[in-house]
Formats: sequence, structure tokens, C-alpha cells
Amino acid sequence: MRIVIIGAVAGGASAAARARRLSEQAEIVLIERGEAPSFANCGLPYYVGGVIEQRDKLLVAPAQRLMERFRLDVRTRTEAIAIDRANRTVRLRYLENGDEYDLPYDKLILSPGAAPIRPNIPGVDLPQVFTLRELRDADRLHAAAKDAKRAVVIGGGFIGLEMAENLVHRGMATTIVELADQILPPWDAEMVSPLAAHLREKGVTLKLSNAAEAIEPADNGVVVRLRSGESLEADMVILSVGVRPENHLAVNCGLAVAERGGIKVNDQMQTSDPDIYAVGDAIETRNLVDGTPAQIPLAGPANRQGRIAADHIFGRSTRFAGIQGTAIVGAFEMAAAMTGLSEKVLRKAGTPFEKIYIHPANHAGYYPGAKQMSIKLLFEPDGGRLLGAQAVGRDGVDKRMDVLAVAVKAGMTAFDLEELELAYAPQFGSAKDPVNMAGFVASGVVRGDHPIAHCEDLPQQPGANGELVLDVRMTGEFAAGNIPGAVNIPVDVLRERLGELNREQPIIVYCQVGMRGYIATRILLQNGFNARNLSGGYTTYKQVTAARQNAG
Amino acid sequence: MRIVIIGAVAGGASAAARARRLSEQAEIVLIERGEAPSFANCGLPYYVGGVIEQRDKLLVAPAQRLMERFRLDVRTRTEAIAIDRANRTVRLRYLENGDEYDLPYDKLILSPGAAPIRPNIPGVDLPQVFTLRELRDADRLHAAAKDAKRAVVIGGGFIGLEMAENLVHRGMATTIVELADQILPPWDAEMVSPLAAHLREKGVTLKLSNAAEAIEPADNGVVVRLRSGESLEADMVILSVGVRPENHLAVNCGLAVAERGGIKVNDQMQTSDPDIYAVGDAIETRNLVDGTPAQIPLAGPANRQGRIAADHIFGRSTRFAGIQGTAIVGAFEMAAAMTGLSEKVLRKAGTPFEKIYIHPANHAGYYPGAKQMSIKLLFEPDGGRLLGAQAVGRDGVDKRMDVLAVAVKAGMTAFDLEELELAYAPQFGSAKDPVNMAGFVASGVVRGDHPIAHCEDLPQQPGANGELVLDVRMTGEFAAGNIPGAVNIPVDVLRERLGELNREQPIIVYCQVGMRGYIATRILLQNGFNARNLSGGYTTYKQVTAARQNAG
Repeated sequence: MRIVIIGAVAGGASAAARARRLSEQAEIVLIERGEAPSFANCGLPYYVGGVIEQRDKLLVAPAQRLMERFRLDVRTRTEAIAIDRANRTVRLRYLENGDEYDLPYDKLILSPGAAPIRPNIPGVDLPQVFTLRELRDADRLHAAAKDAKRAVVIGGGFIGLEMAENLVHRGMATTIVELADQILPPWDAEMVSPLAAHLREKGVTLKLSNAAEAIEPADNGVVVRLRSGESLEADMVILSVGVRPENHLAVNCGLAVAERGGIKVNDQMQTSDPDIYAVGDAIETRNLVDGTPAQIPLAGPANRQGRIAADHIFGRSTRFAGIQGTAIVGAFEMAAAMTGLSEKVLRKAGTPFEKIYIHPANHAGYYPGAKQMSIKLLFEPDGGRLLGAQAVGRDGVDKRMDVLAVAVKAGMTAFDLEELELAYAPQFGSAKDPVNMAGFVASGVVRGDHPIAHCEDLPQQPGANGELVLDVRMTGEFAAGNIPGAVNIPVDVLRERLGELNREQPIIVYCQVGMRGYIATRILLQNGFNARNLSGGYTTYKQVTAARQNAG
Repeated sequence: MRIVIIGAVAGGASAAARARRLSEQAEIVLIERGEAPSFANCGLPYYVGGVIEQRDKLLVAPAQRLMERFRLDVRTRTEAIAIDRANRTVRLRYLENGDEYDLPYDKLILSPGAAPIRPNIPGVDLPQVFTLRELRDADRLHAAAKDAKRAVVIGGGFIGLEMAENLVHRGMATTIVELADQILPPWDAEMVSPLAAHLREKGVTLKLSNAAEAIEPADNGVVVRLRSGESLEADMVILSVGVRPENHLAVNCGLAVAERGGIKVNDQMQTSDPDIYAVGDAIETRNLVDGTPAQIPLAGPANRQGRIAADHIFGRSTRFAGIQGTAIVGAFEMAAAMTGLSEKVLRKAGTPFEKIYIHPANHAGYYPGAKQMSIKLLFEPDGGRLLGAQAVGRDGVDKRMDVLAVAVKAGMTAFDLEELELAYAPQFGSAKDPVNMAGFVASGVVRGDHPIAHCEDLPQQPGANGELVLDVRMTGEFAAGNIPGAVNIPVDVLRERLGELNREQPIIVYCQVGMRGYIATRILLQNGFNARNLSGGYTTYKQVTAARQNAG
């Protein structure tokens, strides 16, 4: 049996190692266009930035080791250029000399990945313009960054942000140009506005709702012309506007490909040809939460898919359960993380959902160094099943997202989050962990104990829709900043001042983060008022406001 | 309706706040023997150590705020001395003047906590001997620590370790005396031997399998006489040998109490008297994993139980699902964490289990600062349902334990861990996260692909039971330290050297952490050898060996 694997990063490398563990007899050929198999592509931005100092560190499993340990036939600098399904051969080209030859296969695994999209604008091929996918891209960037002083990053997604951090780390004046009205488009805008503010504080210029229309040579570097009419001078331009599945091999041999370009596979990673498997960033799979088609480039699922393909080849029945889109990006000590469906995706799909916001500390407030984070939870209004979660903050964001990702995977509800028994000592968390807190709040909403409002429910103008906006913080907090038109009655004296309120007028209550607002809402409801609590309080209000300002 | 709550920390405070949110009408009386309700008892060691500088920080919800915000009738320095169930009154004593009075209740919630055990040895009442439970204990310790140079901590559990760290932080020469043959007795010994070594490195002296038999006044402080015959001079002695449920109120009024002292409750926290609830460290509850009685003092479950008691009083049907014993303790940048059942508990119960060990890095190895941790997973050999997990290491131990705690709570199997989609970027984790890795290894064992051995399976003497011990590391690694009697054939040349091995002789393979050993085992099995892999490899072997040395 000969297994040919095209693409030796993540999914391909995992498939190869798994196949060998399952069979000492199989001939396993690993085809890689680049110079090295199994390199750490997620580490490339940090190598460019000098955070990872030694290039060797990026070589996770050097070809030599794969050959010795797994007896893989590793062919680097080799490109697969065509598949002949009838004859079960793949045509290969050795890039060093252009030699071509056919390699027969019994089973073929496609792990070609996804290629950076190169926008169709003038100047995109100038030598100062870079993408980042392979080691040699990183080498070129690493070299170019030595003398560069000004960088423009086109695209404010994962790689755009990581590149921006690393270019600043190299001392460059850095601008991010993003088409969307927010950074990190998979997230909801209000959940990344704190990170946008943080990037600006660190010196990154953000040009949102904007696009590069041309890149022109200049005396000293290039000039990037923006749709807004602005021009940005730069010594280097990084294109990070997204990726597109590398499906040409699949398309050319007639394999089924989805509308968005991903190679179609079943849950054992077989394409429309049962002898050909596909894994990783090149495929379309299903979203774990709602079963819709999903094309999300992530290393973890790619590795898992590689194992599943190898398993199936050797008669195992493991299946891919779907992808939930768990992701994290760090920049300048902050992090944004998400799992499951975002609000924007839920709205677009017309799926009923409710959401809550909380702003807890990462560990006990009385222990030094506690940092505030923000968590958004999305769930079914009826029953509370979790649909998704997002978080932004500093230490501890990754932990809470992992916990929430497991909860989503397990099909848990908001009520289950209340019950989670997490590891608590004051330097690590709180007896009521942020995830428990999210569960408390969401459960209260589902149970009907805790009616909530959101910023989109606030009157456009003070008093416009007849609702009273009631600020229950201390008078000093109110004076330092509040929602226009709000009236201030601190929660601790609310019971005595109920006479100032009108039972006929609906009330939106808010405090700083939503906790006092909840207590005030309970007081008001039990006294016959029509009240709901602004979820996340003034802190969410500020984040939403900042997102709207970012969006212009 | 009058609800009287006895004990205003964790469970009691949570019950009170919840009750008020459910009813503005109820009269809620919160009785607290100490000076402050709702203080941060988990923070006390860090206040003593000066890590938490301001005493005020420990007052999580000062009495004044509870009175204003929740309209609680907070009575501090007040002790409940008897319950008259027939007349539904509780007898209270105001400790400042000894005045006593009866307070009628409609519903009573007992949240008395657990008291530090004072061993019955001479000298235990000397002024240099301390326990740590209440704020005033911390105040006394804080004051005494100013001049103390030498400390003896009796008991190497959570509080003992936290105190030791803090006393060292204050500059004291510190010795821990522990009855068990390991620190942190709830953990399995080999999982805390790295932490024991770390404590020693930081200057803590450990006296394991030992006990204080007497504490005697000396010219300068005290002398602690140990069972071993040794004597330790000290300026202060901290007793942290465990806690005992404060059940005397419950016992005296005839409520059912379990053998180990915990007040018996149903899953809505009702005692044997349906108008009396009990929550927190004073009760016996059930273990979530195996349903056996459990008495584990933890803040998170105490809070939850308080909410459930209040819920039930107001007609809600929330139920306590059981406790899983998720816990973490930090000391000098290291942490040990656990959830579910330990190996020693499983062995004692005669429950079938298998275990695996892994030693992954907390994040991608190519990103700077990666630190190795050790994880032990306990699971059902048939089907792979998770029974428990333990971890020890530095950064990221808390995260993995929280993820594993959710998995245990969700009733997940080893196979589910393989599939978890966790948040990955190189500074936060790995594309194959440590938890996924634990799942890969355990799943391979359950599937039968990966036969494993453990240190207890190794021949007592080299060659004693006829098994070959095969070290598949590089020759340099082998030379630097190995298992006595082992033969070295590096994995990468194993296929060529199979002729040196005997198919009739069972083989235990090992490498540094178990990964190369797994590959070697697969090679051997497929070539007709009887082989199994030493789980966790030489690293686990060293940890087990160290634990045995600790145990004397």
C-alpha cells in the first residue's frame, strides 16, 4: 500500500505519523512544495519580529527525523501538479530543476492548505509587498525588516495583528488597513474594541472601513493609496487579507468543491473520490454548533483531520465531529478569544439567541495583579444551550475560552456553567470563576429572573422611546461619565427612593459592570416596576460606543 | 418569613445575597462569630506573608455594604449556641458582653464551616502555636511573623504549603512536618514529588512520615519534638493538619450527621429537619464521579450550595449535582492541581482504572518561555470515561485542570479529549494541546493500540521477572541516566536492530516522556514482539522514584 500525502504541515504531517504508527508496511510519501516539512507556521510572525530568535526552532519535525523515525519518503521542494484519478497517479514536479514524474498511489491525502489572498490591485507584486505563509516568506520578511522603518499591514485579522505586534517590536511605525469596520472580523465588534484601543496605545495606526487601492513605487519604499484618499508611505507592505483554499489540484481532477472553495469531504475526510482524502485549511467541514458548512483555517482541527484520514485508510471508524472555531490572538499582552458562533453569524442566520456580558477579574480581586477581562456569552433564549463565547483581556482569557470551548463541545447550557467546579486559589481564579459568573447571569436571564437590555435597546435620544435610563452607581461614578439622559439613584438607597420612579414607565437599569444593576432590577421588579438591566453595564456601553466610533 | 443564616463566609454569604434577590420581603439575619462577614479566607496566608498588603482587601463584602445593599441584618461577634427545633428558635450569644437571646426562624441555614484540627499533644496551646481560620487568626500571625525567624508548619496540605511559601517570603526558615509520606495527601505521591523538590530548592525543609509529639517552651521560642526523635526550634508553629466540620450545633439539636462528621443533607441542601439547611465545609455531600460520600472543603461548591439552599426556600428546584474535588495550590511559581478521583482513592475502592502520564510543554516549544508540566489522567479501562486528573508544573497547569474538570463534569471519555478544540496561538498552547495529548495517549490505551506499563510493573531487580527494559532514547540521554538494567536501542535505528531482541521475551519500552516509546512500541508490536510502553517514560520514573525516596 502506498499512501501519498500532499502538503507536509499540520494535517499532512499528522496523517503521515499516524499512518506509520498504524502500519509498518505502508509506503508513505510526503510531498512538500516548501523546503521543510512540518514547520511551525503559527510561529512565523514571531520569527519575523525577533521574538523567536532561532530559525531552527521553527522546524518542528525536520525531514531527516521524519525519515528516520517514521520512515517517511519526504520529498521537499516538490509540487503536485495534477492528479490522474483513473490511473491513481499524481504528477509531481521537483522545483529545483523542473523535472516531472508520475507517482502511483493507493490512497491520496490532500493537505495543501490555504493560500494568502493577493488583492487584485496595482503594485501588489512590488518587491516591498509580502505575504506570510511559508518559511521562505518569513525569511524574506525577516531580512527586509532589518532596515524597514515604516510598515503597512493590509488586513486586520489574526496574522495582521500578530504581524503588527511583531513589526512594532522591531521598531517600525505600523499601520493596519482593514476593510471591515473593526479589527478581527470573526469577532463581534464591541468585543475587540478594547484590543483596538490597546493597539493604538502601543503605537499601531488603525485604518478601518478602508482598503488599499494601489501600491506605488516611491523614492524611498512605496506609497499605499487608500480608498479614503489617504496615502501611506511604507518600506514594507504585508498582505494579510485572508486565505483561500488551495483547491486547484482537487478542482482539476474533478473532486467536489464547495461554493466558497473548500474541498468537500465526509466526516471521515474522504472527498468525492473515496481513495482521495482531504484535510486542513483546504476543506469545507461543518460547524459543530449549528451544522452549517464551515471553512475555518485552524491548526488543531487540521491535525485531527489528518489522524482521522489515516485511521480510515486503516479501517478505523473515527469521525470528525465538526469545527467550532475556537481561536485566540494575542497582541501586546492582550488577547481576544472566541469559540462557537458570533452574534453577527447568529443574526445573519436568523437564529434566536440571547447574549450577556460580564467584566470579571481574572483572579481574586484581593490578590495582587488582578486584571479585568470582558466575556460575552451567546446562548439559546429557550433552554440556555451555549452557542458561542468571546473574551478579551489580559491574563486568563485563554483559560476561560478553553473552559467555554469544552462547554460548547459538550452541548452544555448556561445552567451547566453555574455548576462547573473549577480550580480555585486566589492567584488563579475566584471561588465564583468568570465562567461561573457568566453562567449565573445567563441562567438568570433564561429563568426570567433577570430581564436584560442591550445597548441597541437604549433610547436613540434621551427619553425618546419613553424608557427611563437609571444609573444605580455611586454619585461619583455617575459624575465621571454616564449614558446621556440617565438618572442617578445609587442601588444602596434605591429602596428609599422608589417614590421618585414611575411604575408606568419602563426602566433600563445600569451600573458599572452589571452586578449592582442586577440587584437594582430585582428590587424594582419585586416592587412592581417594569425594569431590565443593561447587560455588562457602563463598561459594555463604552465598548459598544468605541466600536461604533471605530466604524466611523 | 425570617431566614436565619449561621456563618457569613462563602456559603452563608451567598445564601443571604441570593435570598434577598429572590425576596425583598424576607427578613434575613446573618450570624457571624467573627468580626466580619464574607471575608476572603483563602487570602489569609497571603496576608500573613505580606503578598496582600492591605488588610482591607480581605473584607470582600463589609457588613455595612451587606446591610445597605442586601438589607441583611448582620450580627457579627455573635455565636449560635443552640437550636430549638421544636420552637424554631436559635439561641445566640453576643461575644462582646456574653448576652444571650433567642431568635425565632422560619428557615435556618447552617454554614458554620470547618474548624482546624488541634492535635492532642502537649504544648498545643502555647502562645507561639497558631491556627489559621479567621481574620483574627491572620492578625495574630501577621503580628507574630514580624519578629519570627524560624517557623514549623505542622501539616503539608493546602494551607500548610501556602503558609510555608508565605513564611519563606517573610524571610523565615521554615519546616513542614507531615504525617503522610508525601506533601498534599489528596494527590498521588508521584504527582507532587516535583513540587516537594521545588519546595526544598526554595529552602523549605520537609519532614515527611513524621509528626509533632510535643511542643515545649524554650528560652527563645519553642521546641517541637518529632516522632522521629528530632527536635525543631521555632519562633512560631502553625497547625494545619486538616479541618473538622463544625457540627456541634447540628449534633446537639439531633440533626443527622455522617460518620466523618459532616452534616447530612439532600441535594437541595436540607438536613434531616426540612426547615434547616446546611451548606459548605460542614456538610457531607456526594462525589460527582462515583457517588460516594464526600466531605471536601472548597469555596466554589460552598457558594453554590448557599444559592441552592436559598433557591429551595423560595420554591426553586435547583439541585446540587455533587462535588468533584477540583483543587489547586500554588507555591513558589509552581502549582499542583487535581480533579475527580485519585489513584489512591480508586485503589482503595477497588474501582477498575487505568492511568497515563504525559509531560508536555505549556505552550508551543518554539515560542520562548515554554515550561514542562506533568499530567496524570485516570480513566475507566473499558470505554475510557474520565475518573480524575492531576497536574503539576508552572504556567498553564491551572488552565489544563479547568479544562479537565469540565470534561469530568460532562462525563467525557478519553476519546472526547482527543477532539477538544482549544484556543491555540503559540504563546498560549499548542495545536495539540496537553489535554488533547492526554486524550491521544489514553485513547490509544483504551483502543488497545498502545499497551502501557507503569513503574510498579518494572522488574524489582534487573531481569527479575524476565522482562526486558528497553531504553529507546539517544545514546547520550541513556548515558546521562537510565533505569537499572535497561538496554539502549534508539528508536530511530530500532527497525534495523530488531534482530538483537527476542520475540519470546516481553519488553517494557521507555523514552524520556513516552512519545518515542509509543512509536517504538508500535514498531515492536507490528513486528511480532510483546511490548508495552512505560507511561510517562523516564520523567515519570524519576518522579515515582523521588516519591519513594520521600516516603523513606
